[in-house]
Amino acid sequence: MSDGSLFGVDNLPYGVFSTPDDPAGRRLGVRYLDRVLDIGAAAVELDSPHAALLTAPGLDPLLAAGRPVWRAVRAEVRSWLTDPAHRAVTEPLLVPLDATVPHLPFTVADYVDFYASEHHATTVGRVFRPDTPPLPPNWKHLPIGYHGRAGTVVVSGTPVVRPRGQRRPSAPGEAPGFGPSRRLDIEAEVAFVVGTPSPLGRPVPQGAFADHVFGVCLLNDWSARDIQAWEYVPLGPFLGKSFATSLSPWVTPLDALAGARVAPPPRDEPLLPYLDDGPDSGIPAGGLDLRIEVRLNGHLIAEPPFAAMYWTAAQQLAHLTVNGAALRTGDLYASGTVSGPEARQRGSLLELTWGGRDPIQLPDGTRTFLQDGDEVELTAWAPGPEPGTRVGLGEVIGTIAPAAPPAAP
Amino acid sequence: MSDGSLFGVDNLPYGVFSTPDDPAGRRLGVRYLDRVLDIGAAAVELDSPHAALLTAPGLDPLLAAGRPVWRAVRAEVRSWLTDPAHRAVTEPLLVPLDATVPHLPFTVADYVDFYASEHHATTVGRVFRPDTPPLPPNWKHLPIGYHGRAGTVVVSGTPVVRPRGQRRPSAPGEAPGFGPSRRLDIEAEVAFVVGTPSPLGRPVPQGAFADHVFGVCLLNDWSARDIQAWEYVPLGPFLGKSFATSLSPWVTPLDALAGARVAPPPRDEPLLPYLDDGPDSGIPAGGLDLRIEVRLNGHLIAEPPFAAMYWTAAQQLAHLTVNGAALRTGDLYASGTVSGPEARQRGSLLELTWGGRDPIQLPDGTRTFLQDGDEVELTAWAPGPEPGTRVGLGEVIGTIAPAAPPAAP
Repeated sequence: MSDGSLFGVDNLPYGVFSTPDDPAGRRLGVRYLDRVLDIGAAAVELDSPHAALLTAPGLDPLLAAGRPVWRAVRAEVRSWLTDPAHRAVTEPLLVPLDATVPHLPFTVADYVDFYASEHHATTVGRVFRPDTPPLPPNWKHLPIGYHGRAGTVVVSGTPVVRPRGQRRPSAPGEAPGFGPSRRLDIEAEVAFVVGTPSPLGRPVPQGAFADHVFGVCLLNDWSARDIQAWEYVPLGPFLGKSFATSLSPWVTPLDALAGARVAPPPRDEPLLPYLDDGPDSGIPAGGLDLRIEVRLNGHLIAEPPFAAMYWTAAQQLAHLTVNGAALRTGDLYASGTVSGPEARQRGSLLELTWGGRDPIQLPDGTRTFLQDGDEVELTAWAPGPEPGTRVGLGEVIGTIAPAAPPAAP
Repeated sequence: MSDGSLFGVDNLPYGVFSTPDDPAGRRLGVRYLDRVLDIGAAAVELDSPHAALLTAPGLDPLLAAGRPVWRAVRAEVRSWLTDPAHRAVTEPLLVPLDATVPHLPFTVADYVDFYASEHHATTVGRVFRPDTPPLPPNWKHLPIGYHGRAGTVVVSGTPVVRPRGQRRPSAPGEAPGFGPSRRLDIEAEVAFVVGTPSPLGRPVPQGAFADHVFGVCLLNDWSARDIQAWEYVPLGPFLGKSFATSLSPWVTPLDALAGARVAPPPRDEPLLPYLDDGPDSGIPAGGLDLRIEVRLNGHLIAEPPFAAMYWTAAQQLAHLTVNGAALRTGDLYASGTVSGPEARQRGSLLELTWGGRDPIQLPDGTRTFLQDGDEVELTAWAPGPEPGTRVGLGEVIGTIAPAAPPAAP
């Protein structure tokens, strides 16, 4: 599904790659059309002042360097790719994308997952609790979130082994079931990567969003619905999520999405000052017009619109630090499932199949939840800086592997 | 409250310290009586085969080295402190404890918090939901847990700034309140430090507990009850916990607690094979007879017994990996609040004051929740290997600082 034109000179996302002839050699790359520029090698050959950052084996030093350096490096890489004077240097350093092996681009510090789509939260509420109000009473007052497992965030392409776990007993008082998940699902999400840290005890206001957040990824928050349903009261999701979370190998800089900024939906409740992003707040429009596409075994099954998200990434950052929690370089926070108002815009199978009641049709049969061998791909694009141009996020792909044998006691 | 005799030659916990004359120089130390042995310097002078591990500025390399190395290093350090032949070398390398500055002893990878005390969970249920069964239906079938914020785990002695946050509206439909937490609480917990990692997709059975877990700390899981109460449905605690979690600077090796092993309480429900630790399971007794003491401004207010915990650390490890989640060196998981059956054995103010209804008496007045300037200290001891001997865990101290001003928008 790679569409090179989404990765033109206005995008230039960063990643980490190796090549089969040197599997241990991890290098920083910038994706350009259908190729990857080895920016470490280019920095050395072109005597860049940022060579030390760009010859690292991961993005951590660049993330930590802060926004002025991010902008300078972006301008420099752009010139390497567009200035004819540099062509003789860069041309041999452009590796075909399909000759590269992607790696997790940075060290994930803390991983937080939000629940920021009103359409998703409402549908989930209707599926599970049809007789009560679908949204909890706090939903429109704060962006609900929780911490996930940073250590099991994996790069796109990593096989996803079906998890084993406990299931709710078939009747109250019965023993719980146990085995491979029968309701393995996807959650199509957009994730934000923190570069600049913040000290403990110092909340980060919405207005400082672009100083702290380096860029944007796609993320698939795989979810075992049966495990989650039994475990999550009262302390939230745990093993239903922690087996794997897939991240796109390419981090699109925030500046590449300047043409995609849109106003978020109207707010139904007045917001506390730290979350207020209304017209008098001075906060720039915090929505992003990212059009996500979800493919199951190659077939487009959903097109969730990120512009419909109720809570913005700037609000989420302000909320997660309002209690004084520190940010670290490499913190990753995701939007929660992206779903729109229409049936085809839902970002999870739970919603697309109404909890498994209404199977979706594929050429090879029907699906409620994922089968072993299924491949899920998330892609996304946004309007570029000029009319008619587009910018893509890196794709996230995962294939379901059968459950492993249980451990010996 | 330091009692040097709890830190004799049978304990030998590890930590990281600096001294005021060289604040940037972080060194590995082993606490011995009321002094700290600089084990990096000792390893170099005594030509230890483990000098590379012990001259690191943190415990990470030793944690990653695995159980055979842990045992060899422990035996070696013990000989440095007890063999008269080494005394001339070690004596000058013993720094008085109160001349050292403690640091976080290892890089916290993922932090998980469990909810493993039946007495705690029952009392919390009775305080908040007096008309329903106090335990959720899953409680006796699995050790409930959730991920916390690894980036805000701080070493004992770090001031704890009172968090700001949203509070539940005073009536349905009203706006939420906002401000410094009015119900700031403690949770006295025991935490387990993972050394040996495990690969994704490979559950770790209870029987492998001692191969993966390096040692034990005390932990204070500070909790803002008002923030937590408003935010936690449906995805669990978030900002009510993530502002700070205090960890003891000393990691007591598992082997030092061999004399403290006890059988856990009888199990009321049959357990699935991966959690079974009954007499026919072959799993060693997984309880630990740790006696915790909680002091508020120097006054003993509670003595929670860790032996009363329903779920053991080995069960928690098996549960958190049963879905295939990987372990990393530096993963930290805590027991949840330790509470016993008696009123004086409760490990949180929420329980000790019955949700704020029954203040506790201190010489300087009463308390329901914490006031600015309050100091909380957790200590613990366990039976040592010989009758009449005792082994201590490192203390955890924190003082409440007033809320910081809110961020500018």
